[in-house]
Amino acid sequence: MSATLLSGKPLAAVIQLRARDEAMKLENEGARPVLAVVVATDDESTHWYVRSIERAADRAGIGCRIVDLGPGATEHVLASVLKDLSADPSVNGIILQTPLPAGVGTDALVSHIAPEKDIDGANPLSLGRLAVGQPAFAPATARAVVEILDHYDIPVAGRNVVVIGRSAVVGKPLSLLLLERDAAITVCHSKSGPLERYTETADVVVVAAGRTGLLTGAHVSSRSIVIDVGTNVLADGSLVGDVDEASVLGVAAALTPVPGGVGTVTTALLLLHTAEAAREQSRSLIPGPVG
Amino acid sequence: MSATLLSGKPLAAVIQLRARDEAMKLENEGARPVLAVVVATDDESTHWYVRSIERAADRAGIGCRIVDLGPGATEHVLASVLKDLSADPSVNGIILQTPLPAGVGTDALVSHIAPEKDIDGANPLSLGRLAVGQPAFAPATARAVVEILDHYDIPVAGRNVVVIGRSAVVGKPLSLLLLERDAAITVCHSKSGPLERYTETADVVVVAAGRTGLLTGAHVSSRSIVIDVGTNVLADGSLVGDVDEASVLGVAAALTPVPGGVGTVTTALLLLHTAEAAREQSRSLIPGPVG
Repeated sequence: MSATLLSGKPLAAVIQLRARDEAMKLENEGARPVLAVVVATDDESTHWYVRSIERAADRAGIGCRIVDLGPGATEHVLASVLKDLSADPSVNGIILQTPLPAGVGTDALVSHIAPEKDIDGANPLSLGRLAVGQPAFAPATARAVVEILDHYDIPVAGRNVVVIGRSAVVGKPLSLLLLERDAAITVCHSKSGPLERYTETADVVVVAAGRTGLLTGAHVSSRSIVIDVGTNVLADGSLVGDVDEASVLGVAAALTPVPGGVGTVTTALLLLHTAEAAREQSRSLIPGPVG
Repeated sequence: MSATLLSGKPLAAVIQLRARDEAMKLENEGARPVLAVVVATDDESTHWYVRSIERAADRAGIGCRIVDLGPGATEHVLASVLKDLSADPSVNGIILQTPLPAGVGTDALVSHIAPEKDIDGANPLSLGRLAVGQPAFAPATARAVVEILDHYDIPVAGRNVVVIGRSAVVGKPLSLLLLERDAAITVCHSKSGPLERYTETADVVVVAAGRTGLLTGAHVSSRSIVIDVGTNVLADGSLVGDVDEASVLGVAAALTPVPGGVGTVTTALLLLHTAEAAREQSRSLIPGPVG
């Protein structure tokens, strides 16, 4: 084993503290931040995850309103709830938790999340704003990758970052964030041919494909920094990433673990985004000077 | 000289015919497509370009309404005009032509273009929709690159396309279109380090950086297909791309010329998009079965 493990925990703790700090200031101003999480499933691991957000919010002094519509919720009801929460001045951030009931698509629904409360960057308008450099929340997972690179002083400007996975929640927004940081980015995916063509010469490899064991030691070099965004639940309930840890640890320079890596930072960022959203919203409530 | 020149003209003619065909059908249905072009400059080359769109629209049987607000137009007036055109049922497509008056930013203005009329993909919402796979118009220049590759049977699936330039009008939307076509895409730019690191091994190189002579024969290989998106007007009024044609022609497999390449196709696509927008809008006007 030669690679350094890049734990997400110390960074998550720092971000959690920043969120708490901002939340306390807002509470003193009478504007305690509130995050609403909309759930419409009876999937046990989802409920477990939502409870973990709730506990983290509680520790950060952020209110958490779980809106559990049950697995029978219709698209119409979900849309109404998202519109109501978007209009509700007592709510600062909104997450629509997947999975949704069979037949209900996320695409149309997320458009009902007001961009200023879209703290997990789910609305296509948030992604578009990110692309043109307008203020918008990136999906927390995408930002978590950038924050980890920053935290461990891993430069990306002028370097090649290879992102494996082209999803609208990770691959695409992460590419935008890294371009903003002056990286040369390469996006590959399940249909782009042999991974090693791109990964072998990359400075940083980010794996966000949702496939256990996708990246192995054979794909990387001794210079490679590997960020594992995968969260795959195995049959025995354990959580693993997209990286074959054993073989990559033997070759690469550094690797984020799963669990304890990107996911840990993601949850903390959802809270920081909620506090940031609440701050912005409290500012826009202060009447400006008259015309 | 070994490279094949990939002219845009035959393809532009085909697209122009498709636009004309659709426009004639719509006219027979009493719904002749109309494109509105909003101009607020006295820059002569811009007016020349707008007149060329007008002539092309005329040949395609598409109405063209030039809304010339003059170089003194305020942001407020421009916003009002864009909102009015978005709401006007007699207008099917809208272009906000740059440059704008000093101090007026495009960013806030393009958000006033209704996405269904945003035929040059300028509204960030269009870009966001493109990213998540929802129906949206891509910027015509970005689509022109993909259409040229298709026209000349140049495969991109499983291949590496290197895009030089990260703008919201070409680099980013083009990357999204190419990812959709299963390419592995690499985006580099002025701050990503030596170009040859990426271009030498690329299957296709698209140059959209706005810098004369940026890509030379030293950057490419004999397998390289080079698409030149640059449109730089020299002091003598002549138009050149971002590619050093003389040296690239001696090395690469194929190259699009400037003028007569991507730009020619772009204008034709603006008209096809207008006809497509008019078709969609005429459909949504037909009353559906009563619920």
